[in-house]
Amino acid sequence: MKSPKIGIWFVGAWGGVATTTAVGLAALQQNLTENYGLVTELPLFRGLKLAGWDDFLIGGHEIRETNFFAEANVLLEKSHVFSPSLLLQIKEQLSEYDANIRPGTMIHVGDRIQSFSSSRSQKYAREKPLVAIERISADLNGFRDANQLEHVIVVNLASTEPGLATIEEAKKLSWSDLWDKIEHDEVSPLPASSLYAIAAMFASCSYINFTPSVGSDVPAIDELAIDRKVLHVGRDGKTGETLLKSVLAPMFAARNLHVQSWVGHNIFGNMDGKVLDDPVNKATKVRSKDHLLTEILGYKPQTLVSIEYIESLGDWKTAWDHIHFDGFLNTRMTMQFTWQGCDSLLAAPLVLDLVRLIELERRHGGSGILTAASSFFKSPMGSAPPQFADQYQQLITWVQEKLKQQSSS
Amino acid sequence: MKSPKIGIWFVGAWGGVATTTAVGLAALQQNLTENYGLVTELPLFRGLKLAGWDDFLIGGHEIRETNFFAEANVLLEKSHVFSPSLLLQIKEQLSEYDANIRPGTMIHVGDRIQSFSSSRSQKYAREKPLVAIERISADLNGFRDANQLEHVIVVNLASTEPGLATIEEAKKLSWSDLWDKIEHDEVSPLPASSLYAIAAMFASCSYINFTPSVGSDVPAIDELAIDRKVLHVGRDGKTGETLLKSVLAPMFAARNLHVQSWVGHNIFGNMDGKVLDDPVNKATKVRSKDHLLTEILGYKPQTLVSIEYIESLGDWKTAWDHIHFDGFLNTRMTMQFTWQGCDSLLAAPLVLDLVRLIELERRHGGSGILTAASSFFKSPMGSAPPQFADQYQQLITWVQEKLKQQSSS
Amino acid sequence: MKSPKIGIWFVGAWGGVATTTAVGLAALQQNLTENYGLVTELPLFRGLKLAGWDDFLIGGHEIRETNFFAEANVLLEKSHVFSPSLLLQIKEQLSEYDANIRPGTMIHVGDRIQSFSSSRSQKYAREKPLVAIERISADLNGFRDANQLEHVIVVNLASTEPGLATIEEAKKLSWSDLWDKIEHDEVSPLPASSLYAIAAMFASCSYINFTPSVGSDVPAIDELAIDRKVLHVGRDGKTGETLLKSVLAPMFAARNLHVQSWVGHNIFGNMDGKVLDDPVNKATKVRSKDHLLTEILGYKPQTLVSIEYIESLGDWKTAWDHIHFDGFLNTRMTMQFTWQGCDSLLAAPLVLDLVRLIELERRHGGSGILTAASSFFKSPMGSAPPQFADQYQQLITWVQEKLKQQSSS
Amino acid sequence: MKSPKIGIWFVGAWGGVATTTAVGLAALQQNLTENYGLVTELPLFRGLKLAGWDDFLIGGHEIRETNFFAEANVLLEKSHVFSPSLLLQIKEQLSEYDANIRPGTMIHVGDRIQSFSSSRSQKYAREKPLVAIERISADLNGFRDANQLEHVIVVNLASTEPGLATIEEAKKLSWSDLWDKIEHDEVSPLPASSLYAIAAMFASCSYINFTPSVGSDVPAIDELAIDRKVLHVGRDGKTGETLLKSVLAPMFAARNLHVQSWVGHNIFGNMDGKVLDDPVNKATKVRSKDHLLTEILGYKPQTLVSIEYIESLGDWKTAWDHIHFDGFLNTRMTMQFTWQGCDSLLAAPLVLDLVRLIELERRHGGSGILTAASSFFKSPMGSAPPQFADQYQQLITWVQEKLKQQSSS
Repeated sequence: MKSPKIGIWFVGAWGGVATTTAVGLAALQQNLTENYGLVTELPLFRGLKLAGWDDFLIGGHEIRETNFFAEANVLLEKSHVFSPSLLLQIKEQLSEYDANIRPGTMIHVGDRIQSFSSSRSQKYAREKPLVAIERISADLNGFRDANQLEHVIVVNLASTEPGLATIEEAKKLSWSDLWDKIEHDEVSPLPASSLYAIAAMFASCSYINFTPSVGSDVPAIDELAIDRKVLHVGRDGKTGETLLKSVLAPMFAARNLHVQSWVGHNIFGNMDGKVLDDPVNKATKVRSKDHLLTEILGYKPQTLVSIEYIESLGDWKTAWDHIHFDGFLNTRMTMQFTWQGCDSLLAAPLVLDLVRLIELERRHGGSGILTAASSFFKSPMGSAPPQFADQYQQLITWVQEKLKQQSSS
Repeated sequence: MKSPKIGIWFVGAWGGVATTTAVGLAALQQNLTENYGLVTELPLFRGLKLAGWDDFLIGGHEIRETNFFAEANVLLEKSHVFSPSLLLQIKEQLSEYDANIRPGTMIHVGDRIQSFSSSRSQKYAREKPLVAIERISADLNGFRDANQLEHVIVVNLASTEPGLATIEEAKKLSWSDLWDKIEHDEVSPLPASSLYAIAAMFASCSYINFTPSVGSDVPAIDELAIDRKVLHVGRDGKTGETLLKSVLAPMFAARNLHVQSWVGHNIFGNMDGKVLDDPVNKATKVRSKDHLLTEILGYKPQTLVSIEYIESLGDWKTAWDHIHFDGFLNTRMTMQFTWQGCDSLLAAPLVLDLVRLIELERRHGGSGILTAASSFFKSPMGSAPPQFADQYQQLITWVQEKLKQQSSS
Repeated sequence: MKSPKIGIWFVGAWGGVATTTAVGLAALQQNLTENYGLVTELPLFRGLKLAGWDDFLIGGHEIRETNFFAEANVLLEKSHVFSPSLLLQIKEQLSEYDANIRPGTMIHVGDRIQSFSSSRSQKYAREKPLVAIERISADLNGFRDANQLEHVIVVNLASTEPGLATIEEAKKLSWSDLWDKIEHDEVSPLPASSLYAIAAMFASCSYINFTPSVGSDVPAIDELAIDRKVLHVGRDGKTGETLLKSVLAPMFAARNLHVQSWVGHNIFGNMDGKVLDDPVNKATKVRSKDHLLTEILGYKPQTLVSIEYIESLGDWKTAWDHIHFDGFLNTRMTMQFTWQGCDSLLAAPLVLDLVRLIELERRHGGSGILTAASSFFKSPMGSAPPQFADQYQQLITWVQEKLKQQSSS
Repeated sequence: MKSPKIGIWFVGAWGGVATTTAVGLAALQQNLTENYGLVTELPLFRGLKLAGWDDFLIGGHEIRETNFFAEANVLLEKSHVFSPSLLLQIKEQLSEYDANIRPGTMIHVGDRIQSFSSSRSQKYAREKPLVAIERISADLNGFRDANQLEHVIVVNLASTEPGLATIEEAKKLSWSDLWDKIEHDEVSPLPASSLYAIAAMFASCSYINFTPSVGSDVPAIDELAIDRKVLHVGRDGKTGETLLKSVLAPMFAARNLHVQSWVGHNIFGNMDGKVLDDPVNKATKVRSKDHLLTEILGYKPQTLVSIEYIESLGDWKTAWDHIHFDGFLNTRMTMQFTWQGCDSLLAAPLVLDLVRLIELERRHGGSGILTAASSFFKSPMGSAPPQFADQYQQLITWVQEKLKQQSSS
């Protein structure tokens, strides 16, 4: 095996999605699994000089105290995912990843998330925003230097943060004004996810926000990204019910079938669910799921989105959607679907895909928001159509461009 | 109201879809309904000089003996569709359409369909193919001349025909060789749907095959269409489960989620269901529904499609689909949907859309297969991608071309 | 037709269930419908001298201003129930019922319900509890005397009331102490539903509480019922999801299949739904639906019950239930169901059944709670098993007793 | 551990249900699992002197060549059931059971089943019925003597046999006439399942038929059972869709909701499914599932039952049922359910329950059909009501009788 060249740095490193990504990367590195779920393994990407699985190394920040193997076994036991023999084969590799995990920051993450924190993390509970950014940047620089990495990509996989009143104001500031506030204020105008983004860019790392939290979705931070020549992209990985909405709603629109109501009930029982059981965190999530239909349909049907924590479901997110639509001569008809998907297993391959896309784009000299990745997100940053097919077309076009650039270089 | 200029000629004129189309056209002509379900009423088509609803007149062939108002009331009573007061308001208009209905031919339609025939139609039960074509052409010419129509479009809405052994041979013939057989053979090498197509073209009419029957899907008939400068298009209107397959399967493909099995059970209780209860007719239908997945996915999952006649459902086609797919690390997941759609109400607006598209294309001098209409069909004739989004893009592109042609003319 | 002998007096007379009951009674009196949905028309009841449909007359209290025919047409239009021709045939009969409707009281019904009230009702908005009881009793006595009725049965079909803090205290009082409070306090210790029950009993009427409101479920009121020799029964007609729970949960119990979670999401769009959209009213309803599982299973699984107002559903209550249960060797399995039932049409026949049962029991000299009717309610008053089959057995036993009493008298 | 006293003898010993029963028994003997799914572990049975799990030993007949541990691992891998660590803990115990497996007979089992047979079994492919019975009896006697068992209970868990034309005739014969035919005819008038039953009774064993095959459901064989003082019971373990029908249909009946149609589609991918993929075997199964509704409802709705082999489902039987029913004023409503149950895990505990019940009844001197076990079967032998609740009541009554007998002895 050649030595790793690219770092993947998880925020929320021992959570379900990060653990599953670590398991998956280790399994891919040892050639122990099919490539199902990985978009970048589709025939479309053949010929593109994407990084190989052996090129990656994992590190991260985390506020809890555990390890990848233990967390993987929790998933195995509670949700009946992973092959037990596979976990044994990659146990050693997971331990190597564990060695790169550092305590995270808890600025504005909310009481629910904070209640899970380890004593190692609680030491940093009261640090000022400037100190937090400097500490995180130092961790990232340390990871790169120790492992001689060409590039590090920070991926936010931490639990959804509660909304923050100061965000709207912060979104109006230029980078220099925003930085001025961070440097001088006791209380951060931004939540942890955004401080990680800033710290990442200071350390010349790219940043992916796989959650509905704010992250780098602030104009001033985009300004910073371009200045630092790094890439960023987000928000909220599109893995289940919203993916289906972005696929099905265009059909109703294209056939002029008038959607009267679209009700979606989601139940699941993983850590993410426990966090969303706190209403302040849930509000951020529901907002991320609900705007889509109006954009695609061109009018606003009655909608309802619920997300509930039901422990017995483990990581299996089950969604029931009931769609009421009027057809010709005002005839009301119904479509219902149930989706039984394992959340971490749907999310993890997309994380690996995004890391590969970001890494390739950076090798081609890109910076700022990677709009080609819109199909991966519920509320994609940058300019993106709401229909899945159109978003996917953005990706196809990007691939064709990269192939052209490759052949001409 | 200005006098009608374009004829819509149904084959299977008093069946569920044709009756609903007649009800809908009458309601649109009197401005009694929303335009839900009509694709050509979408904003996309604004600016395009499509024919108005007042421009159309209805006639047709039929082997049963009934009338539009009576059939509409059967649908009302059995399936709880249509507003009773609306039917009363259009009763007179429906009677005018009734006056244009002529007895159909029953060559190779199968015993099940033949068992529904009236004595008026049975008179023609033994006519030779050549005689049938001449009679149908004469009916079409008579309809056009009596009503001073600019163009007549024949729409096949008759029940699904059983498969015919001689078709494969006929598909290899040139038009002159095929015509030679028809002229001289006692037994037709083609089913009724194809004889109607030939008769339509002889009478300079365009032809739409909304069913899975053969219709004009024979190279020699396409040759004839081009020669006669008429348009044709088909097969099998895409209204429910297959529409969903063409929308959902691309999502599984785009996300590299490996579909292991796709099971679809369809139940419904209309006349079409009774005909499909005969296995020889059902085989034609199931074939039309099953090829799609392999084309979209690029591999063949295990599939099952059942269609069963359950009387209590009336025109409400209920489909249950169970999709088993493997995600990352070979994790098996499930999506299920149920579709409760009223079949005739889903089909009828598409018939009106197709008639409008064909008519406009003909005004622009088109002939042969209208490939831009692929999104309307389960197994579209001509060159078409299998994904709904790509098919819909063909339509968008066509609209843009027509707009350009309009502005340049 | 012989002249009516028994009065049915609705509280919430022009609501969905009462209107549907009125439509149904009129249709039965004119022999215009099948007897589907009526339990007392089952073979089990043959030989029992139940009152005939012609024996009943309808009156009631209501706070809104409308009429039965208008409300029936709203249901027809919004929910596609009732045959339009049937409504025309019974229009006159419905008008006769309308003449017997009087303004209701609004003591403790909550702001949401009060917002629907007519000016006729608002006149009584500030009446003291004692005055309200006297007025209601006078209306009931007037109805009986004017129509020479043998017995009047009051049926509470009004929207669900919000919870009332004083109820727990009132439940501990004897009748004389409770009455003392009502006579002297400005503010009623009881909600409207209970005041109606007391007024009914003062007027020697029986009382049925078809809602989750308190009604006669207060020991002191039962004391009054026995004293006045009238019958009463309730709470909350069991028409949909809870009926299914009381049928399905015993199966899981009998097979030792360990239910881990039972999630039920209910959506519907009628007036009842609008009222339940106010959280104070909804709490009463959810409580009524949720206690059942623990009683049947003998342990408490995680449960979730949601009720949401979705306008497009009209009176069609759609429930999705997801049941997670552990079988042999701790294997987790899933059952899901969707129920698409028309709420008023499920409730109305049960109202007619209850009236018939109460009336017969009274003729046999019964008083107090009719426990034999437990299978009709979500939270039956009196001593009742939670399993539907056992509740139904109580009814069978009662029928057998009445038959014996009939033959021995 | 005390030495075993009671033998369980599987026909179809290495099939899915038998393997799961063996795994479960071994796990129970080592106290490695909860008792979920076992009816006889409910509080109802407390105080009853049922045999303990340690009292049982497993043997059986089988036509394939494999072993319990291997088959259990196939289930683990294909259907994600069983804990891998549990299987390792009981591996040795399963090997001990393996030692008691003998080659089965294949008389009239059909080509599909025969195609799975091992060379060890093919040696007996042409044996006459009399020889087969003698061989099977000898195996059973050998098992009992070698292990000093007090009683052996034969459980038919073999794949469903095709229908046999001679059965109707055989059902009319007395035991002596039937035996006369078996002794002298070359071709057996009975299928393998019945020959096993006869052989079992010759060896003084009781017999349970857990399949839809004929087994002991022949009057002459019941005559033999009583003569030999052994018990028997069957047919077709009620584990999924039919269980739900026997629970739900009584609700529709009790509420006078008129069922118009009941459609049930079953998909699954285990060995049983492969056998049922042969139409001759499937016919026997569908018959067993379809008679129930008419018995419970008192009229015949339109019904449809399909069973299809879909490999990806493994042992997870998924049923979709669509029920259309008419309520008050002929309003048509819909209930749908999906059942995702693991077939072998639902069946295995019932096998253990039945063995315990049979064993206790025999200790109390019973013989012939055990009607108290009707709730365990789709088409119970002997006199049984069709409703699940009534069948379960038969079991409750039996338990109460046994408790009385215990305390009086």
